[in-house]
Amino acid sequence: MSYEKTFKDFQKKINAYSYALWLMSWDSQTETPRGAQNYLNQQRAILAEEVYNLTMDEKRIEAIDKLYETDLENPLKREIELEHQNLNKIKKIPKDVYLSYRVLLSNAGLIYKEAKEKSDFSLFEKTLDEIILYNKKLIKYLETDELKGYNVLLNDYHEGMKMEDYDKFFNLIKEKLVPFIAEVEKAKFTYPKVLKEGKFDIKKQREFNEYLLGAIKYDLNHGLLKESIHPFTSGVTSCDVRITTKYSEDDLSSAIFSTIHEMGHGIYEQQTNPLYSGTTLERIRSLGMHESQSRLYENMIGRSYGFWKNHYPKLQETFNEELKDVAVDDFYKYINEVNKSFIRVEADELTYSIHVMIRYEVEKAIFKDNLTAKEVKKLWNKLYKENLGLDVTEDKLGVLQDIHWSGGSFGYFPTYSLGSAIAAQFYETMKKELDIEKLIEEDNIEKINLWLKENIHQHGAFKIPNEIIKDVTKEEFDPNYYIDYLITKYKKIYNI
Amino acid sequence: MSYEKTFKDFQKKINAYSYALWLMSWDSQTETPRGAQNYLNQQRAILAEEVYNLTMDEKRIEAIDKLYETDLENPLKREIELEHQNLNKIKKIPKDVYLSYRVLLSNAGLIYKEAKEKSDFSLFEKTLDEIILYNKKLIKYLETDELKGYNVLLNDYHEGMKMEDYDKFFNLIKEKLVPFIAEVEKAKFTYPKVLKEGKFDIKKQREFNEYLLGAIKYDLNHGLLKESIHPFTSGVTSCDVRITTKYSEDDLSSAIFSTIHEMGHGIYEQQTNPLYSGTTLERIRSLGMHESQSRLYENMIGRSYGFWKNHYPKLQETFNEELKDVAVDDFYKYINEVNKSFIRVEADELTYSIHVMIRYEVEKAIFKDNLTAKEVKKLWNKLYKENLGLDVTEDKLGVLQDIHWSGGSFGYFPTYSLGSAIAAQFYETMKKELDIEKLIEEDNIEKINLWLKENIHQHGAFKIPNEIIKDVTKEEFDPNYYIDYLITKYKKIYNI
Repeated sequence: MSYEKTFKDFQKKINAYSYALWLMSWDSQTETPRGAQNYLNQQRAILAEEVYNLTMDEKRIEAIDKLYETDLENPLKREIELEHQNLNKIKKIPKDVYLSYRVLLSNAGLIYKEAKEKSDFSLFEKTLDEIILYNKKLIKYLETDELKGYNVLLNDYHEGMKMEDYDKFFNLIKEKLVPFIAEVEKAKFTYPKVLKEGKFDIKKQREFNEYLLGAIKYDLNHGLLKESIHPFTSGVTSCDVRITTKYSEDDLSSAIFSTIHEMGHGIYEQQTNPLYSGTTLERIRSLGMHESQSRLYENMIGRSYGFWKNHYPKLQETFNEELKDVAVDDFYKYINEVNKSFIRVEADELTYSIHVMIRYEVEKAIFKDNLTAKEVKKLWNKLYKENLGLDVTEDKLGVLQDIHWSGGSFGYFPTYSLGSAIAAQFYETMKKELDIEKLIEEDNIEKINLWLKENIHQHGAFKIPNEIIKDVTKEEFDPNYYIDYLITKYKKIYNI
Repeated sequence: MSYEKTFKDFQKKINAYSYALWLMSWDSQTETPRGAQNYLNQQRAILAEEVYNLTMDEKRIEAIDKLYETDLENPLKREIELEHQNLNKIKKIPKDVYLSYRVLLSNAGLIYKEAKEKSDFSLFEKTLDEIILYNKKLIKYLETDELKGYNVLLNDYHEGMKMEDYDKFFNLIKEKLVPFIAEVEKAKFTYPKVLKEGKFDIKKQREFNEYLLGAIKYDLNHGLLKESIHPFTSGVTSCDVRITTKYSEDDLSSAIFSTIHEMGHGIYEQQTNPLYSGTTLERIRSLGMHESQSRLYENMIGRSYGFWKNHYPKLQETFNEELKDVAVDDFYKYINEVNKSFIRVEADELTYSIHVMIRYEVEKAIFKDNLTAKEVKKLWNKLYKENLGLDVTEDKLGVLQDIHWSGGSFGYFPTYSLGSAIAAQFYETMKKELDIEKLIEEDNIEKINLWLKENIHQHGAFKIPNEIIKDVTKEEFDPNYYIDYLITKYKKIYNI
């Protein structure tokens, strides 16, 4: 049997198991009855071990090693390259370390949840220290000549970005945005109170969010919209990419922008080259790239004036009672209002990156300066005071608000801002090639979808992020586009 | 390694794979996007083959054979007995025959669907002949001294019932019910037209069906209600048993009784002894027993006067516009009206078994008299004329209405009536031990659930159906209870 056949036979099985695991995770987050979660987790653990065993099967490793040394055609060549890279990573981590880390994380989730409910960080400190320790161990296993320390983790979430790059990026944000936010703060505007204080029937919100799927031309033949506690996108293959949103009676905009944000993630995956179906190439790796697409849809499209000129009448019709005296200009102000606040996921577009920068600073301190969990909270609160002028009085509004660290995700946060910045750079190029505002206003969004497909989405993991950025924008990544985009947008809105 | 450990290790894996396959099937029927169904089917085929390979693994077979000869304690003893029986069955069917049958069936589903859409049985004839031929082959492989011909299939769906038993059963139905139905036909009653001709908002129906979950005390910690094209119950383990219903704007009762029917199936599975979790013993085998529980909830509880005395006010409140002039007595008549009709799943409780008897006669003719697909339609229409006085003019209202044969299910239909009859016999015993009508009227349904759990549900596959019937009712199965139950009920309703 040829090595190629061996490799493909293994991939077929791994794919089927991965599909099952994906479906379990989707189900678990959207509908598994509470009393069945434990049973589901037991089955998941068994299948996950099967996948591990298949992945690390000697025959598979041999096939990949041999194919790696062979002169292959693309896309197989790129697939083998990625699998080879991946194998080398897994091989470096002893199986027992890997498995005991999994156990630690699954317990950590429950401990974190309890600590958050009680708003008491001290309950989570010991666990967080253990997770940090494990990550430091992982770093040691995975370090190379090029990648050391925290850079190992950063590179895992977005290939090509190191601390020196993020430092430059966040310094620019600090230098340019922090003073600009202070300026915006002085220039207040008003809009009808009902937008912020009204109650908005969830059934009607559901109806409007279903409508949005059509407005953005989300492909429902290969996806669906459901509900969950935290909105997310879940795709296992480009032909099945599902999104969720979350409704709150007190907040009309929350579900709307969650839905549009997740559609951005979803369309990115749906539009992967179908040739890559069932291969590593459709499992898109860079979180910064992923976030660039969700932010582009959420902010550049979803928070634009043209989009609401087009779709606000439908929203007004849906909430005819509540919105009868609210003009589209009011709604536009409401969804673009700048407010310094404690919670990252509720932050406006302008202050958002300040929240992310703070997390980046804390993570750097953990891995560079050996900050302990106990000190994490102190630093967190200090940075919120310094950068946003806020006194964090409750842990659940502060250091306990995000789930990421309890899941072992360090190096993930910075990709949120990076994504916003990449989106702004793409947007600048798009504007040269398309009359975006007109397309949005005239309901021609499929042309924008198509541009993104051809330039970005189709590539999947075939190209690394910096390669895509270079190919599309003819430049290296440049965060100045982001700063300029934000300052221009908010100067106009706030009449500064 | 001990044989027991070997067996249990295999079961653990088989369980995990079965769980994944179950979830895929559930997802496929309730939400998989159309464009992803094919991808799902490919992954399902791969995992199904893995399950087959694990099931037939030499080491597993050896372990089961050795354990079968060992003196074991229950419940392991019974588990091994069932697995041994099952293995012997699978071993007799050559793998290639089994696999090519699976392929035939998956194509048959699409052909059947098209034929039904076009209401043209001739499009399905060739496929049906192939399925019949395969079933005859299967019968040959599986025949034993005790079980020959069609009995092999009958026994597969409900252990212990042979043609001679069903013949007696259906002859009694024909002899007693056909003339009684003629009597009922003459005694007409009336109720407000709106019940039959009104439109009932689906959102409100949803609200009321959610309410019913509480009314029946369905355990939502281990189950959920969703929607699908055909209502069904899907359980993989007693801790996760999900049901679906189907709403139609033109028919208020359809979803209500689908929901209650499926809850009956669901509660049966949910209340299996938790000791049997993850074993064959919680995969309940007899369809007649299963149906006895769904029918008991649907008809004896759900169509009772006391149930609606209790819950009709809520229904009236939900549809205050439509039902304001409809009394509970009217509603009770409406849900118990007898109407000879073409479609089995829409039939009333009294004529239901006539539909089933016709299908039983047709299947017997197929396997005893070698009826071909072409002749099936002729016989079908003849029997509808003879027994219900109806001229079938369209295939979709006749021989194409049910999906079962396209899925290779022969011997399944009779369990529908058998279940109704077993339910009536259980109900008679229950009435001696519980004041059922009072419990229903006073919202004390959990006492009925508990009685069913202790007497029936908990046993899972530990006991065979006839053993349970004997233990509970102190008698053999006796269809006269069913006839008496129906005649008494409808004499009262129709004032005969």
